[in-house]
Amino acid sequence: MRFFSDNAAPAHPKVLEAIAAANRLDTAYDADAWSRQLDGAFSDLFGTEVRAFWVTTGTAAYCLALAALCPSYRAVLCHREAHIENDEAGAPGFFTGGAKLILREGKGAKIAPDAVAAACDRIRKDVHQVQPAAMSITNATEYGLAYRASEVAALGELAKQRGLALHMDGARLANALASTGESLADTTWRAGVDALSFGFVKNGGLNAECLILFRTELADEIAVRRKRAGHLLSKGRYLAAQLLAMLDGDLWLENARAANAAARKLADAAPQRLVYPVEANEIFLKVTADEAAALRGHGFDFYDWAPGEIRLVTSWDQQGEALDRLGSAIAAL
Amino acid sequence: MRFFSDNAAPAHPKVLEAIAAANRLDTAYDADAWSRQLDGAFSDLFGTEVRAFWVTTGTAAYCLALAALCPSYRAVLCHREAHIENDEAGAPGFFTGGAKLILREGKGAKIAPDAVAAACDRIRKDVHQVQPAAMSITNATEYGLAYRASEVAALGELAKQRGLALHMDGARLANALASTGESLADTTWRAGVDALSFGFVKNGGLNAECLILFRTELADEIAVRRKRAGHLLSKGRYLAAQLLAMLDGDLWLENARAANAAARKLADAAPQRLVYPVEANEIFLKVTADEAAALRGHGFDFYDWAPGEIRLVTSWDQQGEALDRLGSAIAAL
Amino acid sequence: MRFFSDNAAPAHPKVLEAIAAANRLDTAYDADAWSRQLDGAFSDLFGTEVRAFWVTTGTAAYCLALAALCPSYRAVLCHREAHIENDEAGAPGFFTGGAKLILREGKGAKIAPDAVAAACDRIRKDVHQVQPAAMSITNATEYGLAYRASEVAALGELAKQRGLALHMDGARLANALASTGESLADTTWRAGVDALSFGFVKNGGLNAECLILFRTELADEIAVRRKRAGHLLSKGRYLAAQLLAMLDGDLWLENARAANAAARKLADAAPQRLVYPVEANEIFLKVTADEAAALRGHGFDFYDWAPGEIRLVTSWDQQGEALDRLGSAIAAL
Amino acid sequence: MRFFSDNAAPAHPKVLEAIAAANRLDTAYDADAWSRQLDGAFSDLFGTEVRAFWVTTGTAAYCLALAALCPSYRAVLCHREAHIENDEAGAPGFFTGGAKLILREGKGAKIAPDAVAAACDRIRKDVHQVQPAAMSITNATEYGLAYRASEVAALGELAKQRGLALHMDGARLANALASTGESLADTTWRAGVDALSFGFVKNGGLNAECLILFRTELADEIAVRRKRAGHLLSKGRYLAAQLLAMLDGDLWLENARAANAAARKLADAAPQRLVYPVEANEIFLKVTADEAAALRGHGFDFYDWAPGEIRLVTSWDQQGEALDRLGSAIAAL
Repeated sequence: MRFFSDNAAPAHPKVLEAIAAANRLDTAYDADAWSRQLDGAFSDLFGTEVRAFWVTTGTAAYCLALAALCPSYRAVLCHREAHIENDEAGAPGFFTGGAKLILREGKGAKIAPDAVAAACDRIRKDVHQVQPAAMSITNATEYGLAYRASEVAALGELAKQRGLALHMDGARLANALASTGESLADTTWRAGVDALSFGFVKNGGLNAECLILFRTELADEIAVRRKRAGHLLSKGRYLAAQLLAMLDGDLWLENARAANAAARKLADAAPQRLVYPVEANEIFLKVTADEAAALRGHGFDFYDWAPGEIRLVTSWDQQGEALDRLGSAIAAL
Repeated sequence: MRFFSDNAAPAHPKVLEAIAAANRLDTAYDADAWSRQLDGAFSDLFGTEVRAFWVTTGTAAYCLALAALCPSYRAVLCHREAHIENDEAGAPGFFTGGAKLILREGKGAKIAPDAVAAACDRIRKDVHQVQPAAMSITNATEYGLAYRASEVAALGELAKQRGLALHMDGARLANALASTGESLADTTWRAGVDALSFGFVKNGGLNAECLILFRTELADEIAVRRKRAGHLLSKGRYLAAQLLAMLDGDLWLENARAANAAARKLADAAPQRLVYPVEANEIFLKVTADEAAALRGHGFDFYDWAPGEIRLVTSWDQQGEALDRLGSAIAAL
Repeated sequence: MRFFSDNAAPAHPKVLEAIAAANRLDTAYDADAWSRQLDGAFSDLFGTEVRAFWVTTGTAAYCLALAALCPSYRAVLCHREAHIENDEAGAPGFFTGGAKLILREGKGAKIAPDAVAAACDRIRKDVHQVQPAAMSITNATEYGLAYRASEVAALGELAKQRGLALHMDGARLANALASTGESLADTTWRAGVDALSFGFVKNGGLNAECLILFRTELADEIAVRRKRAGHLLSKGRYLAAQLLAMLDGDLWLENARAANAAARKLADAAPQRLVYPVEANEIFLKVTADEAAALRGHGFDFYDWAPGEIRLVTSWDQQGEALDRLGSAIAAL
Repeated sequence: MRFFSDNAAPAHPKVLEAIAAANRLDTAYDADAWSRQLDGAFSDLFGTEVRAFWVTTGTAAYCLALAALCPSYRAVLCHREAHIENDEAGAPGFFTGGAKLILREGKGAKIAPDAVAAACDRIRKDVHQVQPAAMSITNATEYGLAYRASEVAALGELAKQRGLALHMDGARLANALASTGESLADTTWRAGVDALSFGFVKNGGLNAECLILFRTELADEIAVRRKRAGHLLSKGRYLAAQLLAMLDGDLWLENARAANAAARKLADAAPQRLVYPVEANEIFLKVTADEAAALRGHGFDFYDWAPGEIRLVTSWDQQGEALDRLGSAIAAL
C-alpha cells in the first residue's frame, strides 16, 4: 500500500459522477451552467462574498494569486520550506515576472509574526533592496501542522500593519480544518487572508482546484491572468462540476476527516516516534534505515524524508485492514 | 442546436470510460502507467520518435512550444488572424518572456512562403530590429482551410533556409487530415514541423491536449517549463488516459470525420454562400442579418463573424435530424 | 559631412563644462546636489509639479514609463512606424513583462483619434483579447512631423474616454516645439500626457535623457524600476548636470532651433522633392539612386530610406558653409 | 571627508580628458572609432580573445551576463551577501525572466567549493526543484576580501564538473588584483570564469563599466540583450573613450593601488579593530557607538554596518593630510 502522497489517490466516486453528469453540450470556457454557480456556492460556504476560479493545479492557484498581490519588483515572504519555494520549479518567479521570495525559518514550517516582523525591519527602505508586498502561509503546513484561526489572525494583523497582502496555500486546508474544528471563515477572511488556494485534488478531487478571492476587486485581473497562463480550459464545466460535488453535503470535509483519521491511527501506533504533532494527514516518523526497510518489506511504500526520518501521507480512501496492518507494523518496530 | 464552437461539445463516451478506468491509486504527476505510455503511443502514430506531453489547453501546448523555440528577445512569424495573436490574451508574450509576434497576411488565414520570405527580408539584421526565430501555422486554419502536406513542406523548407523553427497549432489537425486524407507524418515532421500542438478537446476529448516534440532534445526543457507554468497536474493519469482513448482505434480520426461530414452537409446546402471552401468543420456563410435571424428563429445558435457573415462549427456528435433541419433551413433562405 | 542622425552629433560645449564642474566628491546615485535639483527645475519648466528621472537612453525612458502605465497583460497602442515598435529590439515587451503593441496606421507616423477609437472598438471586451491600457505617440514623429497642442489634446481626450494612459516619446520634442512655437505645457500635460520621455541626447546632450512624470504618484514605482533595470547610475550627478545645463538659458530650445534651421535650409533647396512637410530636423527627399550617388559624390552621407527616398537629419551644430554646399547640391540635382 | 563609498568619488582627470577628446561627430551606438577598439584592447589586456561591451552600471553588466548564462527556469548560486542578492532591487530576476538565486554562506562573503557542492547535492534532480545553471562570485568580495587565482580556479573546476557557468562580479576587481599581485588572466578566464563584470566607475571612471565575455559565442545574444534593456547608448564613444583611458598606461591598476594604499594606512592605524583582513579598499572596524560619534566629530563620514561595526571605503583620490588625520583619529580611539 502506498503512502507517498495524497496526490496519487483516486478521485471520489461522486466526483466522477459529477463529471459524467456534466457531459453534455454547454457554453465554452467558464460561461457554462456549472461554472456560473461557483461564486455563489463558495460565497455561501465562506459566509461572505468571494470570487471563485477553477484551475487544474495548486501551482496555478497560488501563482495567479501571488501575481495579483505582488508586483514584479517586490517580494513575497514565506517559510524556507514552503512549497512555493521548494517544489514549484520557480513558478512564482515566472507568474510574477521575477518577484523574490524572502525566506523565514519557523518550526514545522509555520511562520511566526516575530520572524516576519524581524525580516521586514531588516530591509532598508530604499530602491536597492527588494521590498515585500505579500506574505504566503501554508495551512496545513508542509509538515502537517494546522494553523489555528488565532494564529492566522495574528499574521493577518501583522500583514495589515506592514502593508502586506496575505495569501494562504490551502492545498490541505480541509485537513487542517478537520483537525482544528475551526471554521473556514475564521481561519481565512476573518483572519485577514486576501486570497486562498483551496485544494481539492489531494482530497478526493480529480483535477480541479479553486482560487478564492476575498478581495473581489482582483477578479477581473485574475480572469485575464488565468487565460494568459493557459489555465482557462475550454470545457470548464468538468472542473466546476467537480468542485460543486466536493461542496455538496460537505464531501470535502468528510474526505478530510477520513484521511486525518487514517493518519491519527498511524500516529497512535507509535507516538514516541513522531517528529511533529499530527494535525492533518501527514505523519513524520523517526525510524532507522533498517526499520524503514522492514516496513517496506511488509509492502508499504513511502518517502525517506531526512536521515532517520520517513514521511507517510494518508488519503481519503485509506482505511480498513491494510491501514490496520501498517499501524501494527509501526507499533511492532 | 448550438454551432458556436466544437469547444463546447461533450466528450466522447470512450473518453469518459477511460477516465473512470484510470481511477485508482497510481504514481503522481506523469510517472503513472498511462502517462508512461504516451511517448510510445505517439511515436507509433507518427512513425518516428517523438516526445509527448499532456496539457489541459491549447494555449499551454503552443505557448510551451514557442517558449522553447523562440528566445525572449526574438519573434514568431504568424498570420494576422492566428489564434495566438487574437485569442490568447497575449499568452505567447507571457510564456516567452516578451517575444514579439510578426504578423503576415494571407487568404483564409493561411500564410504563404512568399509572405514569410518578404517579412524576413524587410527586417534589418541589426540589434535594433527584432529577429524572427520561429514560424507558427494553424492547421486547419482559423477559417477552416487545411494545409496540404506539400504546402507545409514548402514552409518547412523556407523555415530551414531562414533558420526558423516551425510550430504547428493543430487544434483542428484531425479535421484537416480527415479532409486532405494525407498522413500525419507527411503533414508534420516530414514537412519540417519541429513541434505540434495536437488538439483533442475540440474533437471529443474532455480536457487533455497534447504537445508533440519532433525535436526530442527539447523535452527536458519543456518538462520544466510545463511544471513552472502550473501545467503539471498531480493526477496526470486522467489526462494520459484520455489521449490513449483517443488514439485507440483511431477514434480521433473517426470523430474528425464525423464533424467534417456534418460541416459538409451544411456547406452543400448552400454552396454559393460559402466564404471559404469547407475543408474541416467550420463553415463561414454569407447571410444577411434577416437571414441570420431566421435561422436563429428555427432554434439554431452561432456567431456573427463579420457584417453579412456567420460562422458555424460542427462537432463529432452533431448528426441526425437536427443537422438535416439546419441544412434545409439554410437551403431555404 | 554626415546627415545620418542627430544621434551621432557631438555634445554642446556647455554640457561638457557642466560635467567637468560636477567632477567632485558628492553622494552616490541620485542623492547628489545636481540630481536633487531636477524635480524643481523641470517643474518650473513645465509650470506644474513633475517628477524627473535621469536615464541614459530613450529606450529606458519610454520603457520605464510604459511598464508603469501598462500591466504585463494589456497593450499599448502606437503607430506602426513608432520607434518602440521598429527600433528598440522589443524593449517594451521586456520592460512590461510581455505587454503587446497594437499598431495603427496614419500619415507621417502620426496617429489620429479616429484610428485609435476604431482599434479600441474592434477589440472584444473579454479575456481572450488583449485590452489596451495606454497609448504612445512620438513628437516629433518618426517622419519629422510636429503634433500641434490641439492634436495632442484630442488624443488626450480620447485616451481619457477610453481609460488609456498617454505617453509621449519626445526624443525630438524640442525640435517639434521649436517648430510649432507652442508651449511645453500645452503640448504635454495640459493636453493629457501622463508621462514624457524628454530627449536631450539628439539635441546636444552627451548621455542624459529625462523621464518626466506628470502623474507624480508613479514616482516611487519608477524609482524602483529604474534601479531594477540597471539604470540607476552610481555617479548620477554627471547626468543631472547635463540636464541642468540644457535647461539653463533654454539651451535645449536654442539647439533645436539651430537644427531646425539647418533642416529648413535644405528643405527650401528643393521643396518639390519633400515627402513630408519639414516640421523638425528631419528631411525626407525623393531622389533617384543616381541623384543620391551624386550627393554622396559631393561628400555627404545619409540613409536611403525607401526606394527613391533618402533621409537627412540635421543637428544643433550643423551650419555654415558645408550646409550651404549641400543645399546647393540638392537644388542642382 | 567622506568614506561612504568609492561610488561617490570624482572621475580621474584623464577620464574627463578622454571624454572631451571624443566630442566630435562619429557613428552612433557602438560603431564609432572608440567602441571598435574595445575588443582588441581588452583582448590584449587579458591575453586571450574576449568580447567587451560598455555599459553604464554594474547592475547592467552582471545582469546581462546572468541572463545569457542562466535560463529563466534555472538558478544562480551566489553568496547570501552578494550584491546581486542584496542591493540590486531584484535585477537578476528581471533580466533573466525569473531565475532564482540560491544563497550560500561563507566567511567574508567568499564562497567555498564545499558549500557550492553541498548545495548542488541537496537539490533533487527533478522538475519540481530549480536546477542551478550558473555561479556568481564577487571579487573583491562585499567585505573587501580578494580571491586568489587558485581559489577562483577551484570554483571554476567545480563549476565545470557541475555544469555551471561561472560569472565574476568584478566591481572592485582592480583592487583585488592590486592586492594579490596576481594576473588578470590567472584570476579570470584561466581559472574558468566565463563572463566578467569589470568595474571602472568605483575606480576613477565616470559612468562606463565593461562586460567581458570569455565565451565569445555569447556576444551576439548579449548585443541584443543590451539594446533590449535600454543599455545601448546612442553616443557610445563617450563610454568607450573612458574605458580606453582607464586601460592606457594601466591607469586602472594605478588607481586601485592608490585606493588600496589609503585603506592600508587606515587599517594599520588599528589592526586589532579589523573585522576582516584588508585586501582591497574596504575597511570594517569594530568601534563602539561613542567611538563612531567621535570620528564623525572630527569630520569623517562613513556607514554604520552592524552594531559595533563601521565600514570605510577609500577611493583612488584619497590621500594626503586628511587621510593621515583619519588614521590618527582611529589610532587614538
